[in-house]
Amino acid sequence: MRARLFALTGAASALALAVAAQPAAAEEGMWTFDQAPLARINRELGVDLDQAWLDRVRMGSVKIQGCSGSLLSDAGLIMTNQHCVRSCVQANAQPGQDLLAQGVLAQAREEELRCPGQTAEVLLEITDVTDRIRAAGEGLEGGAYTAARSAAQTAIEQEACQDRAGERCQVVSLYRGGQYKLYRYRRYDDVRLVYVPEHQAVVFGGYPDNFNFPRFGIDSAFLRAYENGRPAHTPDHLRWNPRTPVAGEPTFVSGNPGSTSRLKTTAQLETERDWQLTPQIDRLADLRGRVVRFSEESDENRRVTRDIQRGIENNQKRANGMHRALSAPGFLDAREQAEAEFLVRARAAGAIPADQNPFAALEGVQAAQVALTDRHDWLESQAGGGSVLFGWARNLVRAAAEREKPSNQRLSEYSDSRLPLLERSLLDPRNLSADLETLYLSFWLSKSREILGADHPAVERLLGQDSPEALAARLVRETTLFDPAARRALWEGGLAAVQASEDPLIQLVLATDQDAREIRREWAAQVSGPADRYGQMLAEARFAVLGDSVYPDATGTPRLSYGRIQGWSENGRDVPAMVTVADFWNRATGAFPYQAAPRLQSARDRLDPSTVFTVSTTHDIVGGNSGSPLIAADGSVIGLVFDGNLPSLGGAYRYEGEIDRAVAVSAQMVEAALVNVYGGEALARELRTGRGQR
Amino acid sequence: MRARLFALTGAASALALAVAAQPAAAEEGMWTFDQAPLARINRELGVDLDQAWLDRVRMGSVKIQGCSGSLLSDAGLIMTNQHCVRSCVQANAQPGQDLLAQGVLAQAREEELRCPGQTAEVLLEITDVTDRIRAAGEGLEGGAYTAARSAAQTAIEQEACQDRAGERCQVVSLYRGGQYKLYRYRRYDDVRLVYVPEHQAVVFGGYPDNFNFPRFGIDSAFLRAYENGRPAHTPDHLRWNPRTPVAGEPTFVSGNPGSTSRLKTTAQLETERDWQLTPQIDRLADLRGRVVRFSEESDENRRVTRDIQRGIENNQKRANGMHRALSAPGFLDAREQAEAEFLVRARAAGAIPADQNPFAALEGVQAAQVALTDRHDWLESQAGGGSVLFGWARNLVRAAAEREKPSNQRLSEYSDSRLPLLERSLLDPRNLSADLETLYLSFWLSKSREILGADHPAVERLLGQDSPEALAARLVRETTLFDPAARRALWEGGLAAVQASEDPLIQLVLATDQDAREIRREWAAQVSGPADRYGQMLAEARFAVLGDSVYPDATGTPRLSYGRIQGWSENGRDVPAMVTVADFWNRATGAFPYQAAPRLQSARDRLDPSTVFTVSTTHDIVGGNSGSPLIAADGSVIGLVFDGNLPSLGGAYRYEGEIDRAVAVSAQMVEAALVNVYGGEALARELRTGRGQR
Repeated sequence: MRARLFALTGAASALALAVAAQPAAAEEGMWTFDQAPLARINRELGVDLDQAWLDRVRMGSVKIQGCSGSLLSDAGLIMTNQHCVRSCVQANAQPGQDLLAQGVLAQAREEELRCPGQTAEVLLEITDVTDRIRAAGEGLEGGAYTAARSAAQTAIEQEACQDRAGERCQVVSLYRGGQYKLYRYRRYDDVRLVYVPEHQAVVFGGYPDNFNFPRFGIDSAFLRAYENGRPAHTPDHLRWNPRTPVAGEPTFVSGNPGSTSRLKTTAQLETERDWQLTPQIDRLADLRGRVVRFSEESDENRRVTRDIQRGIENNQKRANGMHRALSAPGFLDAREQAEAEFLVRARAAGAIPADQNPFAALEGVQAAQVALTDRHDWLESQAGGGSVLFGWARNLVRAAAEREKPSNQRLSEYSDSRLPLLERSLLDPRNLSADLETLYLSFWLSKSREILGADHPAVERLLGQDSPEALAARLVRETTLFDPAARRALWEGGLAAVQASEDPLIQLVLATDQDAREIRREWAAQVSGPADRYGQMLAEARFAVLGDSVYPDATGTPRLSYGRIQGWSENGRDVPAMVTVADFWNRATGAFPYQAAPRLQSARDRLDPSTVFTVSTTHDIVGGNSGSPLIAADGSVIGLVFDGNLPSLGGAYRYEGEIDRAVAVSAQMVEAALVNVYGGEALARELRTGRGQR
Repeated sequence: MRARLFALTGAASALALAVAAQPAAAEEGMWTFDQAPLARINRELGVDLDQAWLDRVRMGSVKIQGCSGSLLSDAGLIMTNQHCVRSCVQANAQPGQDLLAQGVLAQAREEELRCPGQTAEVLLEITDVTDRIRAAGEGLEGGAYTAARSAAQTAIEQEACQDRAGERCQVVSLYRGGQYKLYRYRRYDDVRLVYVPEHQAVVFGGYPDNFNFPRFGIDSAFLRAYENGRPAHTPDHLRWNPRTPVAGEPTFVSGNPGSTSRLKTTAQLETERDWQLTPQIDRLADLRGRVVRFSEESDENRRVTRDIQRGIENNQKRANGMHRALSAPGFLDAREQAEAEFLVRARAAGAIPADQNPFAALEGVQAAQVALTDRHDWLESQAGGGSVLFGWARNLVRAAAEREKPSNQRLSEYSDSRLPLLERSLLDPRNLSADLETLYLSFWLSKSREILGADHPAVERLLGQDSPEALAARLVRETTLFDPAARRALWEGGLAAVQASEDPLIQLVLATDQDAREIRREWAAQVSGPADRYGQMLAEARFAVLGDSVYPDATGTPRLSYGRIQGWSENGRDVPAMVTVADFWNRATGAFPYQAAPRLQSARDRLDPSTVFTVSTTHDIVGGNSGSPLIAADGSVIGLVFDGNLPSLGGAYRYEGEIDRAVAVSAQMVEAALVNVYGGEALARELRTGRGQR
């Protein structure tokens, strides 16, 4: 804001400017596989990659829910992070069994543990469908515009995958609506757990070391994709290479970065900082307090919340890091200046008409967004507070109403092409902790009352004369939805069955869904619709001015990042590029959270102190890249990405090559732990040979 | 920030502009008693106040720690809020006794309970000392400038009160350094508790109703000032008037608003929003989680934390409300525009030289502040995390070192004039919960490690090889400082005794105080010193341009606010000016936190349903005004301020007469509860007659 009155300080102007107006800096970018800048990569890193190299990396990379992975044998063996598969470990634990703490190693195929709901996908093809999506929205405004484009999207997906069993089709909106591409994946629906080390070997260093380096977590896991009950045949896997990494060597990361906001305008980023991140920081700290309290009530509670608490803490640190990046003095000022310059340039190039200003238009959207944000958060997007039961109830109620309409007139998540997956998520058996469900519902109800006020009509409809705690307890006590048969009856019974249901959760959703749908409509008409429209205008102008020297914001889909193994400098202190097993023993003081895991400790003599434990790299990554392979120039896998440093949390908004670092555990450490600590010699052989029994 | 590129929206420009450039709006202002705008008040409210009225209100008003109060009889009877005296109630509870829950009513003087450390002050005189303070800083820079002015300040205080027993002298910095005034108070050091109602009658509605209206809390308390062991003689008290308040009637609030930032520049407010409030929101939510968890471990823990938890929750809501006010779209843009206009005007008037720009200079200070803020927070200003033991240890260590120097070269809190109060706070017996002390220390140590990083040298000096939890437990287990005799020995033994001490807390402070003192020095030189200097330049320019049409930011000292009893409109809903006992019973659903207090419930038949319970008013107040009398035009007390509504939390930065409301319990409700529920007929008689037995 200060830029208007006063000159930017040196520090501010030295910051990376908005990508809105700048081509990518060296080693910057999460590139799509169809637009990776090969010439530039070869030039900057002094390597010699070609299209065949790119294709091999793509075919050896895997997209799993919220994370990334790599295929490492011809028998469907997938490497990812332990933190990406914790819920699978938890789902497979018998009552009283603490599988997560002990770790898992399947000694034979039949011991591999099925992960409920887990899929794995390999990207086969990308096709441009921008024209068709644009045509669908032509001449429409607000909610109608959003609905028409969403309908076109689902139609394209349905057509493309119609006759392809085992595949999935997804229309991806790139450049905030500037480009639409159809992604076609091979999909594996049966994914099983092969190996995770002990939990403490993964989370060593706990909260203080999270998003820091040096870092000593063996955050690794192996899964296996199955087809027709047998390990999948995956000849296009990557090569395992447990050699010692070299500081300064060029490396590549293939994965699915989840979401960035680099193409958002300054006005949108201010809203994100003040009306999304700060409330999120408050909400997460509140939820964490409740979860910690719950976890301390019993050993069983501690077991069921271990992964949840760690997840919340991870999100807290991420939200704080993102907030700090947006609050850095001068950061947004520099962006705003870049936007002003870009506007001039784009108008001069005829890419933005003189009477149009998408930056100003997007600023205008912010007031509406702020005015609607509390209701949208608590009645719609955060509704249920994380309760799975509530999610089921809402889906049953909404699907029943939506299925009465033609597919392309429904809320998009209930279109015909999406129903099979929805049905599976609703009807698959799943064990839930009733107490944890109560906690989530109580959290949601009390925060809704706190934020919207006890006298808000929608809150009165939610709570009636009840307290949040009493209502949540009653809903969980009396609902029938724990039982898959009850859910199936409502799913198959449709609208009539739902309306006649005496289930209190179904009744709560029925009584309050109008409030939620109403704010959703207002949001689409006043916030997301206009934001998409002006975002598209800006995206087109960016293409006109900058060509494809810019990469799209992350969208949870396959991308390539290039960089090097390299440390950085922080407050005058040099942080190394690599740390070893010897460094680990120095840090393991035994005081929480610096206790070496028990089996790791026992195996101390069998671990070579000079083994490289973890490396820091210059890769441009964000959350979603977890589990990505760290790939050498020859295409082999020399490490496994599992974290970034604190500055890299600002990666949501910019890339700063001087200080942003990704953190990976070396392939040699993963193998050393597997063989010397956890007895996984057979699995290590499969990795080394690339061959597994099918 | 958007103002630079794009025109302000209508909503933004309709907001109150920065006081930097605007005279106060109708009913706006926290006016000092020597500059209250009588003519304007009389004109706006249609009343006829004179200097004698002002003097009576001042002499009948009381400043107590962090709060306000009024004298209501000739025998030292003081009314304030229950929430201002909770720590006194807690300090008087016998083990196992839940005084706070039960309430207190002294039936005779000898039953009145001494409040440890409590004082009460009446403002006698205000004198301008600006010239002398300015002269002291002349020609100096950075830390030297700050130190010289601080030395002058303590010298003035010491001289003024030298021969006046029972008085206190305080130099108050007004207009952010634009004016310095000497405030002389009559001081009562012996203050005792006469009455508080049951806790549930105060906190009815809990967190959701806090900072909301309708509101039903009887948040009242009576104290008594003593002199020489007898009730103080206070003929200049205000008159108690339990009549029915009238919607629309003019009212006045006399109290001690704690702190506002209305004269801060936009750059300073951005720092406050992003680097103070958001981290505070995170910190409070974290601390609250720990306190709640602790409180649930036992009934005793619940008892000792009841007031603390409520206090944290109050601060959470306040911090969130302040953050929202600063994040309102257009708010800071409008201020920035007003600053630019003011700069032009001030330069035209010759009040700011053409080559000077205090706004730009203050912006330049922000980068330094941001860079230093984590170390300043965790090593200096938040050190100890709330632990009383840590505060004692630090004061003992620092006082020992500082007392070796001449008074005016010490850290200001250790100058000779401040030592008597410090000594009392160190040596007075005080019961502490060891577990709660451990919680605070553990919170501080773990947050310090989290924020500064496990590898920060200062964190390594704090923790050594320990975990925060283990270190905190050991410090509390092994320290001798619980014992007042141990503290006295260190206090009287001075530097030699402190350096020879084997107390682990003393040793911790000795080992780490250089880190704390170093950041304190850097902060003074780079942040607070320059901010004071440019703040003074702006303040002088404001006087030159606006005269005394502006009031100073709140400073925790006596102020007058004028306004009316009036409701407001919120999201299309009209909120009433007053609610009654009948409305209360409607809200008392019995579900937490809407349970009527037990004794209140039993007395239901004895309470007139038409009694006005609480009123909302347009007064411009902030935290610190708690306990202020609500005064009618005739000078009588018709209510007791205890809260504001949510929009009023933005009062830290601006006053918006349309929506900001103060909340007061009516005098008639206070008396009805006292007489009909809690058996305080004798006390009610003292109120009605203004006469008490001495």
